[in-house]
Order: sequence, then structure tokens, then C-alpha cells
Amino acid sequence: MTARRVAPGGRIGILGGGQLGRMLALAAAQLGYRCHIYDPDPKAPAAAVSAGHWQAGWDDSQALAAFARAADIITYEWENVPLAVVDQVAALCPVEPGRAALAIAQDRLSEKRFAASQGIACGPYAAVDDRAGLEAAMGALGLPLVLKTRRMGYDGKGQARLHQPADADAAWALLAGRPAIAEAFVAFEREISVILARTAAGAIVHWGPVENIHADGILQTSQVPATVSPAIAAAALSATARLAAALDYVGVMAAEFFVAGDALLFNEMAPRVHNSGHWTIEGATTSQFENHIRALCGLPLGSPALLAPARMQNLIGADVDRWPALLADPAAHVHLYGKEDARFGRKMGHVTWVGRR
Amino acid sequence: MTARRVAPGGRIGILGGGQLGRMLALAAAQLGYRCHIYDPDPKAPAAAVSAGHWQAGWDDSQALAAFARAADIITYEWENVPLAVVDQVAALCPVEPGRAALAIAQDRLSEKRFAASQGIACGPYAAVDDRAGLEAAMGALGLPLVLKTRRMGYDGKGQARLHQPADADAAWALLAGRPAIAEAFVAFEREISVILARTAAGAIVHWGPVENIHADGILQTSQVPATVSPAIAAAALSATARLAAALDYVGVMAAEFFVAGDALLFNEMAPRVHNSGHWTIEGATTSQFENHIRALCGLPLGSPALLAPARMQNLIGADVDRWPALLADPAAHVHLYGKEDARFGRKMGHVTWVGRR
Repeated sequence: MTARRVAPGGRIGILGGGQLGRMLALAAAQLGYRCHIYDPDPKAPAAAVSAGHWQAGWDDSQALAAFARAADIITYEWENVPLAVVDQVAALCPVEPGRAALAIAQDRLSEKRFAASQGIACGPYAAVDDRAGLEAAMGALGLPLVLKTRRMGYDGKGQARLHQPADADAAWALLAGRPAIAEAFVAFEREISVILARTAAGAIVHWGPVENIHADGILQTSQVPATVSPAIAAAALSATARLAAALDYVGVMAAEFFVAGDALLFNEMAPRVHNSGHWTIEGATTSQFENHIRALCGLPLGSPALLAPARMQNLIGADVDRWPALLADPAAHVHLYGKEDARFGRKMGHVTWVGRR
Repeated sequence: MTARRVAPGGRIGILGGGQLGRMLALAAAQLGYRCHIYDPDPKAPAAAVSAGHWQAGWDDSQALAAFARAADIITYEWENVPLAVVDQVAALCPVEPGRAALAIAQDRLSEKRFAASQGIACGPYAAVDDRAGLEAAMGALGLPLVLKTRRMGYDGKGQARLHQPADADAAWALLAGRPAIAEAFVAFEREISVILARTAAGAIVHWGPVENIHADGILQTSQVPATVSPAIAAAALSATARLAAALDYVGVMAAEFFVAGDALLFNEMAPRVHNSGHWTIEGATTSQFENHIRALCGLPLGSPALLAPARMQNLIGADVDRWPALLADPAAHVHLYGKEDARFGRKMGHVTWVGRR
């Protein structure tokens, strides 16, 4: 693929204006770019740090066309941006990462099949299209298992755990007939992620693996370096690079894995900057956000070198009320996303410590 | 002074929307604040990364009042913001740093007298109010000397060097009758600056001393640590802290000094974040920009610890055309201010290297 170049001063359109868009906009500003956010939410966190905000619905063709015409390059911060939206703006302005990565990442079943096609192992799973399919999956995979919607799930939403056969009805009801995937329970020791940036010419830099701790399906803590064997680390990096190359990927992407003994099992991927890479803002020479912008704009990638061991903790819901104590720690890098309403489970900010665990 | 506190989520008004305002707004955004910029320039670099832009003149009382009412705290990024403007907005919203620091820093003669009042040595100087005063100064100080306007000079503007008596007419003509100060030429070995942040309660953290290289009156390069003796470093820190305490200063301020042998001579001060502190973004645990916001909002200061030796180079005028080569250096932190017109002498961006000289 020929590298296109958008020089500093150019206009970057970002589909989605949450905290990922906000941190992308801040990184783009450092390099002299002007960002425009497309998000229906009048209080989209990214809009307050960007040159423009297209506050319109995902079905507003006119607004989408105007947004696309006002940009030199478009990206997205949310993997559930409708494919039809990407197709519409892509007709008017280049979009990276490309459609294939987005389409695959929007469907948990496609993700697993794609990983398998690249020779990357996943835990046992089965497609579940109806109630009978759930019975079949229980038979094939055993219990416990996790039933997840194939689409639009994130941060533990759209998931149900089945510990005994009697849980099946409630789980199926929760999914409300949506196509699903059943995953065998993996008795993993660790969860890790790899974040990489790839240019159109195929150059790759990576941060990680990163060790992650989730609770209720939401990332709580990420730290580097991960306590995994060199073999596991190499396998995770190589698998993620293979996924990116197969997609001719441009920008930052993340892949999450389970580590179970000597086995590395692919869990899911994200075609965007990733929560487990927020520590790169202070903990690496170049952050995931800056390198996403660089890759997007056809610039050379910055060094991903780790400066020191780093730990990132999410501030979820009422966690954010701890800001006075966190700001009183002179070594804590406190990031608050400017969201007014600290709803339960909502990511309100994060804190990074570098050089001490 | 009682510390007021503006909690994250609060609204910060910034008078002036240049690159200093832009970097302040980026730091404020990280902590969850919303910034509003007041600047007559429709292309003010800070406006593109802020929630609001009051694009109106410095004499527009109505716009200034509306700006002040929309803020929880106001600061400035430009020491030549008219005092009348500060007085007007201060009647409606707290402004930090306070009026005294601004008034002193707007007048080179007041600066020198203020430093002297705090027992801080300056090089020989004389007030020059008219042509006869210039003759008297030449007699008292000898030649060469530098004649500078007392007000509104920056980056080498409003200055003339006199090497021989015959230069006096041209120098006087350049100043066009404005009150001036004549400074004896100081044969210094080094120029250094100290940047500090001070809270309303009197807590101080500092970065520096920083070693600076100017050309044509414009800062070219800053590096840390400065190659000065411990005694000079201690004297510079102590002098700057004394100036800040005497002003009951809140926020970040900078003082510049000449080092000549064992002597430390005060040159000038700036009641704002300072170009010689840009390296703190990547080279220190907490940047000057973040600590200015913290001090302003009544939050505890972050650690100013130096992470590694650092060097900052300004990109002035056409220097910015070197961006492709700079971005190809994976260890260079490239900052571009989003200015369209790379005029001669204009600060277009800067680059910081950390951990190598």
C-alpha cells in the first residue's frame, strides 16, 4: 500500500468523542494537527479539546458527508461505529484503520475465526444462534461457560456466565435472541495484551506485553513489564503482528490473550488505541496515541521504549471521587476525562505511576 | 492567603491564546478542566484545543465581562496583557498570578528595582527617559551597552546595541521616544533560568537551573542540568523563590540570570510558564504547565523531578520546515503549535530530547 502523508497542520476527523478520542486529540495537537470530532453527545469529552465538533446522529448522512469533506484523514476511537458510517465517509476521505479490521472486531465470532485462520489458538468456543445452539454448546464445551453477544458488547456488557444447566434460560433471555458465542471457561493465570502501531509500509513498533486485571469485565489495572516467560511474550507479539499484517493494518491495534501454563490463547482484538496502553503516555518514549496519529498521517513511528516499570489504574464510577488523594501523590499522573456524570461502571479517568510498583 | 480550590471539571479562562496557552490548555485537559481562551486572533493556537474561544479585542469590555463570568479561575499566558484587562476580569473572577507580579514584569526598570529590593544583584543599568538620559547612561555605564524599551519588548524586539557613541542616534530613533533602560554589556559565560511553581499556601517546587542559549534575543536551546557550580545553582533558586514569596505568587514563574565568574546577575522575570521550561513536558515527572494549573486551582503540586538530562530546541521561523527529519528521529519529542504562517523569528514549535545530550 502506498503511504499517504498528511502533514502537520492537517485536519484529522475522529469518529467517536469519548476518552480515547480525547487522548488522540491531545496527541494530535502536540504534532500540530487540528482534530474534528463526530459524536452525537453534546458533552463528548473529546470535543472540548478539539477544533470542531459535529454533533449529529450516526444516521445523519448530510452531517457525515460534511464531516468527511472537512478532514484530510479519518479515524475512529470506537470499534462499534457502524460499518455503514465508515463506508459513507470513506467514499469522501481516507479512513484508517481499514474496513476489514473494523468488521472483524465488531463480531466476537469473526475475531476468533480470523485468529484461527492466522494459526493463533483460542480457547474452546461455539457459535450460538438459538436456544438449541446453547444446549449444543453446553454439551460440547461443558460448564461453566460464558455466553456473549457477538456484537456491541464491551466492558462486560452483553455477557452472562452459566455455572449450571439451570442458568441457561436466564442467560438466553439476557441476550434477547441476539447471535451469540459461547466460550469455555479458561482457567488462566494471567491476562495480557499487546498494543502495536503499524504504518502503511508495514513498519511495526509494539508496547508490551501488558499484564491486565479485569473485574466484572472491566479493566482495572495494567502493568508493565508483564510477568510472563520470554516464550509467551514472543508468541503474543508475533501473533499480534501477524493479525496486523494480515489486515494490512494502519494505526494502533490491541490484542488480548489468556496465559494458561505454557499456552497462549487469543481472546479478542481492538482496532484502536486501547485502555491497557494508557500508561504509554508517561511510561514510554512515545505513547500509543501519538503513534496512532503518526501511522495515520504517514509519519515515521516514534520509539515505544519503556522508560521504567509502569502501572495504570482505571478510575471507574465513584473511584473518581478519590481525586484529592490521588492528586496529593506527587508521583501520580492523574488523568480525568471531563465527564460530569460518574455513573456506575463508567470510565472517568485513570492514574499512572512510572518507576515504582 | 487562603487557598481557593477549583475542582477538576471547573472552567479555566486563559488570557492570550499562543503556544503557552495551548500547552496550558493541554495540561488542564489531562486533569479534566475545561479551558476558555480570550484572544483577538481567530487563529489563536490555543483555541483549537479548548472548549471555548472569545475572539474579541482587549478593549471589548462586554466580551471581557462575559469571558470572566464563564470562568472559575483566570490566568494569562502573556505578560503584556494590559493591566486594565486584568483589573476588569479580576472584579468578576479570581486571577492568578496576581496583579503585582504582572505590573512589575511589564516594565524592565521595575523588574530590576524589584530584584534589587530583594537583595538580588543585577548588572549595571540606568533609566533612559530622553536623549539626554541616553548620553548620561553612556557616560555612566560605558560602551558597549544595550538600550531596551521598558515595556512591550520580547524575543529581542525593541532593543538596540550601542557599540560606539555614533550608534546613539539610530538607537534612540528605534525606540521612538518610549521610556527605556540602558544595560551595561555583561560579559557572561552562561545564561540560566529558574522556573518554579508556588501555591497560595507558599509551597514551592522548582525545575532548574536551566541553561539557555539565545541568538538575536530569541531563546534557541535549553538544557538541564545546567553546568553551573552548586553555589550558583543554590543562589539562583533562592533568589527566584524570594521574588515569588515577596509577590505572594501563585502559579509558575521564571527568572533569568547571567552567570559571570562567581557572580549571579538577575536579568528578567516572567509571571507565567516559560519557554525554557518546555522540556519539563517529557523531562520531568510533572511539567511546568500541569503545575501551573495545579497551583491555580489550589491542588497540591506534582513532583518536578528530572527524569534524565534533557535538551529543548526551539523551531523558529523556517526551522519548522525540518519537521520530516525531526519526526524521523524516534527519540525526538516534536511539538508543533499549529501556526500556519512561519514568519521570520516566529516560534513555530520545539523539540525535546530526554536522556541524551
